[in-house]
Order: sequence, then C-alpha cells, then structure tokens
Amino acid sequence: MTIPAELNPRERLLMGPGPSTVPHRVLRAMGASTLGHLDPQYIQYMDETCEMLREIFQTSNPLTFPVSGTGMAGMETVVVNLIEPGDEVIVCINGVFGGRMKDNMERAGATVHTVEVPWGETFTDESIEQAVTEHPQAKLVGIVHAETSTGALQELAGISEVVHRAGMLLAVDTVTSLGGHPVKVDEWKVDAVYSGTQKCLSCPPGLSPVSFSPLAIEKMEQRKTKVQSWYLDVSMLKNYYLGSGGRAYHHTAPINMVYALRESLRIVLQEGLEARFERHREMHQLLRSGLESLGLCYIPKHSLHTLNCVAVPDGIDEAAIRSRLLNEYDIEIGGGLGVFAGKAWRIGLMGHSATRRNVETLIAALKDCLG
Amino acid sequence: MTIPAELNPRERLLMGPGPSTVPHRVLRAMGASTLGHLDPQYIQYMDETCEMLREIFQTSNPLTFPVSGTGMAGMETVVVNLIEPGDEVIVCINGVFGGRMKDNMERAGATVHTVEVPWGETFTDESIEQAVTEHPQAKLVGIVHAETSTGALQELAGISEVVHRAGMLLAVDTVTSLGGHPVKVDEWKVDAVYSGTQKCLSCPPGLSPVSFSPLAIEKMEQRKTKVQSWYLDVSMLKNYYLGSGGRAYHHTAPINMVYALRESLRIVLQEGLEARFERHREMHQLLRSGLESLGLCYIPKHSLHTLNCVAVPDGIDEAAIRSRLLNEYDIEIGGGLGVFAGKAWRIGLMGHSATRRNVETLIAALKDCLG
Repeated sequence: MTIPAELNPRERLLMGPGPSTVPHRVLRAMGASTLGHLDPQYIQYMDETCEMLREIFQTSNPLTFPVSGTGMAGMETVVVNLIEPGDEVIVCINGVFGGRMKDNMERAGATVHTVEVPWGETFTDESIEQAVTEHPQAKLVGIVHAETSTGALQELAGISEVVHRAGMLLAVDTVTSLGGHPVKVDEWKVDAVYSGTQKCLSCPPGLSPVSFSPLAIEKMEQRKTKVQSWYLDVSMLKNYYLGSGGRAYHHTAPINMVYALRESLRIVLQEGLEARFERHREMHQLLRSGLESLGLCYIPKHSLHTLNCVAVPDGIDEAAIRSRLLNEYDIEIGGGLGVFAGKAWRIGLMGHSATRRNVETLIAALKDCLG
Repeated sequence: MTIPAELNPRERLLMGPGPSTVPHRVLRAMGASTLGHLDPQYIQYMDETCEMLREIFQTSNPLTFPVSGTGMAGMETVVVNLIEPGDEVIVCINGVFGGRMKDNMERAGATVHTVEVPWGETFTDESIEQAVTEHPQAKLVGIVHAETSTGALQELAGISEVVHRAGMLLAVDTVTSLGGHPVKVDEWKVDAVYSGTQKCLSCPPGLSPVSFSPLAIEKMEQRKTKVQSWYLDVSMLKNYYLGSGGRAYHHTAPINMVYALRESLRIVLQEGLEARFERHREMHQLLRSGLESLGLCYIPKHSLHTLNCVAVPDGIDEAAIRSRLLNEYDIEIGGGLGVFAGKAWRIGLMGHSATRRNVETLIAALKDCLG
C-alpha cells in the first residue's frame, strides 16, 4: 500500500460542542516521554491528577479518577457499577444524553422509568418529586447537568434533596459543565458523576473523569452480581487508583493522555475555579449579544455558558454555513443533534476556546456568511 | 490545594511487558493540534489509520479500527459483540490473559468451557480438536497468540482449521504480537482479533486495534439481544468507521491518540513488516544469548521474540533488581504476573525498544546488578 503522508492537521478554532481548542502547554505535556503505568513517577502523576480532579469536582470523594475512555465510557462506568439486573431507575430526558443514559441503563438490565420534558427545557424539583413518589422502589435518579445536545443548564441542588429524601442515589452527567460551570459534588450530594476531558478542561478527548460518593461505594459493595464490564469494573479499578503500598495491575492506563489531563487541570487551578466560571459567563454574554445582534435566538431558556444553542433562521442551509466557517475561516461550530438536526447551531465556549478574541472572530465570520 | 509541579517524566528505557519506548516522531504527531472528530481532515486520518491497520493485520476485513480504550477494551469489544447470554464458548488458558478472556465471556453471559495447559506451555491442534469434539455446541474458541504473562507464542494455523471445521468462530488476542510477529488474520482465518498500541507498535497506550471477519459480522447481525456495552457496540461503531457519505456520531474519538497511532503505523510500514519481524527475531537471539550467558533460563519452550520471560535465580530478590535497574539505569523491565509473581522477569523487545543498543545496555546493567 501507499503509506499516507505526514500528519499535518489544520489549526482549527474549535467552537463546536467539543473538543475545544487545546492549549499548546497541554499538547506539549502530552508529548512527554512515556513512563510505564506502574512506574512510581507515573503513579505520582496519576495521584496528583486525581487530587486535582477532586478540587475541580469540589469533592473529597476518595474514589475520583479518570476512566480510560472518552465521556461515554464514564457514563457506562457509572451505570454498570451502580445498576444490577432488575433494578428500577428513573432517568430524566430532555435531549440526546438523557436518552443515552436510559439506553445504557437498559443494557445493564435496569427497568427505566423516564421523566421527560421537551428538548431545551429543564426539570423542576416538583417533576422529580412526582417521579420518585410514583416509583418509590427506584434505586437511582439519573440526570444531565449540561445537555450538550440542547445547551440547557439543569439546576441540581433542589433535585438532590428530593432524590435523597426518597432514599435514592443521584447520578449526574457533567460532560459539558466541568471546568466551565460550578459542579459542586459534595454540596449537591451527587453520588456518581462523570465528565469528559475535551470540553471545558480543554484537554484532548480520551479520558472521562468520574467520582463516586461513599454512599455509592456502599451500594457497589452490596452488589450480588459481578459488574458486566470487566474494563470498567470499579471494584478492581479502585485497587489501582486507591491502592496504598502496591498498585494492583488492572489495565495499562493511557499514560500520555493522563499527562495531558494533568496539565489541563493545572491550568484550570492556576486560573482559579471562580475566575474561570466568571470568564465563561462573560464570554457567553458577549457571544449572546453578538448572536442576537445577528438576529439569532437561543433555544433553551436556561442556557449553558459553555454551549450556546441557537435556532437556524428560516431559509438558511445550516450545513453550508458550517462548511464555509470550516473551510474559509478554519472555525468549527456544531450542527443540531437529534430533533434539532438541521435546525440548530451549537457554539461552544469551552475552556481555552472561551476568549474575547474567539467570540469576536466568530461573530465577524458568521456575519460575513449570513450577510 | 498546592498545584503540582510541571510535568517532567524521566526518559526511561521501556523494556518491560509494555508500554515500549515511544519514538519522538510519534510523540510529536500526538502533540499536533486537535481537530474535531467529525472534521473531514480527521475522518481522512482515521480512514488512513484503519487502512494501515488492515495491512499490519494482513487482512482485507473492512471492519478494522482502533477501539477507543486500551487493549483490554479491545478484548471486551470482541467478547460483548460476539457473545449473547447462554452461548457456549471454549477458552484456552495458559496464562493471565486467557483467564481474563474467560472472565470477560462469563460477564457477557457465556457458559465457558476451558482448555488448560500449565503456564508457559502452548496448545496443540489435538487438544483443541478434543475440546471442540467435547463441546460441539460452542460458538467460539478464544485463544491468546502472545501470552504477555508467560512469553509463550502460540501457533494458530492448525488450530484455526480445527475450529472452523467444527463450525465455530476463532477469536485471538494479539496484544503482544502485532507489529513484532506475523499476525495473518486472513490466511489464518481469524474471525475476531484485538491488540494494543503500546507494545510492538510503540505508540502510547490508549487504543486497541480490532478486526472482524465477514463471518463474525454475519454472526453479530443475527444477534437477538442488544450488545451489553453501549460504548463498545460494533453495530453502532461501524456507522462511524465504515459510514460512507456522512459519519454517524457515536462517541468523541480520542483524536490525538489516533494521530499517534497513525504515525506509529507509518513507521511500521516504512520499515516493512518482514524486516520488522526479522529485527525482532534477531534482537531476541541477541538478548537470549546475553541472558543465557548470565545463567538465566527462559521459561516458555516456544518463546515470543517480543517478550522474554526468564526464571529468577534462587536467592535473588527480583524486585530489588528491578528497582536498581529503574533507579540507577532508568531501565524498566517487568516482574512476573500471577503464578510467576516473584519468580520471573519479563523483558520486552517491542517495536522501537528492540535495538542492539538497548539489548547490550540491558545485559550490561543486569550483569552489574546480578554480579
């Protein structure tokens, strides 16, 4: 065969639903020389990574680590470890990712009761209260904090109270919020949470940070059946991530991806969580006023700062606009997903991508393309 | 919290059971700017990566791609897609990884019949003939080509004939052979195969190349139940990896890991498969004569070229020797696993690590430490 040419990717401005633009510092760290996965120096890097993840998840949960797969592997880790065949669960669906959580839970053998609101809307405490009252046997409520498919931001504090009062666990998807919006795992009493590295942490995709509360661990320890996934079985993984003295070999961790995540977390903490959230808020306001000045309307009432989902105006070929942005400006934005396919654009302001320069560049380019 | 110091990993010589030392070319490629996972340029890079994987697996199987996880995720992909609850299977166990295959298959609901030989030994065609005769209902035979825990190399051509004559599928673990020993997927009629990137391909860990034969796909299409893993469900993944026209979004692929794999495969093909296998053979001979001159004995009769498993002499604290090699020489070798824990060293000669300089450096260091 003809051997393909040398790699030479274009330097895109990544303002879609993820990945976001990765800082050079992170790319450089990722290219550092590979250590063995049981090398004491690597173990230290991994421990530091987990410690920084705790800080960013705002939790003291010991069991906090990056799953060796992308965000959806994190979802599956939470599901397969907490669910046993026959369990009843409640899943809140207002977009693609709630739907996937349902699919994941069914594959783990759960009977899934759903609470649904139209795409782009969010859940009230009352709607969850009603669901837990209707299904008192449910073990867990799953909900998405930041719906990447609609740009809706879900309040969680009140819902958590409702869920725990009913004696259930709370599992939360924070793929598009961690590092851009506050994710207060301990304060909100979240029992299981997963995220991705390629959104507001501005690390390449490849790992999924997760955290489990002591209550979640207690439930896992009471399992009667083996976790259906060997690769994602926390009962074994915790001997690697928490083992003191020796670390039990489970699988070979993606060493250089962990280097990249560690560097991206250092950047997050150097900026400071509050300053980072404020920057995302400010850039969202700036983008919003720019988009609205172009006549574009946000779809969700409670919009994420990190993902801005706007309706495509009538008569516009949305894919053609995205192609122009990509090919003429090297800017990537996202199209709609699911029921919003062809009808929405999704503009990410995540981590390193959330800067004044990027917002103004995008607005100028979009104005050209629409004009 | 105190933010950890800048990353500064030592430049180890990786001569353990993996990862192997990664060439700078691969590290540089991995640090190239991140593209979106649906970017046409990225799709092209992915297609080229799959095409090179076909060349190295010596197959024309269209369904050949890197799973977004490390080697064990590849094993799980093969298992969960081919097995349905209630299926009978035969698994050959002569080390850790055959045992893991059994565990994986049981988690997928299979009834597993095992064929076992002592660790370090390999299977004859006759032993498999006997097993398929005893369990004619079995759907699949799983076997390890290169047992990373013992260093044994398994012949496959004859076994494949036996398996197919019995109407069963053949699934093979090539984690420690791909890129170092011939893996002839089409000639040997292997129906499902998985590997890792961090061994003889000398790419960092993080992806698992897999390939499925048309017969395996036919079996998957006849499934009555959903694949238990959403993340690893090939019925969805193939729409991303094989989709012509649009690529269906499934999960965000680990973009920069794919850059790294693509570069490592370019290096493999630039060297040429036959030249590469010959280099591994020569370096194995050189290492073997060096180790034997130090009085060390190989454990397996049919040793891999890529992984050299030798018995630790009586009275030697094997962990202390490994610590000295690591701390004084920056050389990593592996200890024994499972029944060989404390009793064996595992010395890898994989990909970029398999050079005359490395072999002679290691022999000299080992002589110092043992002397």
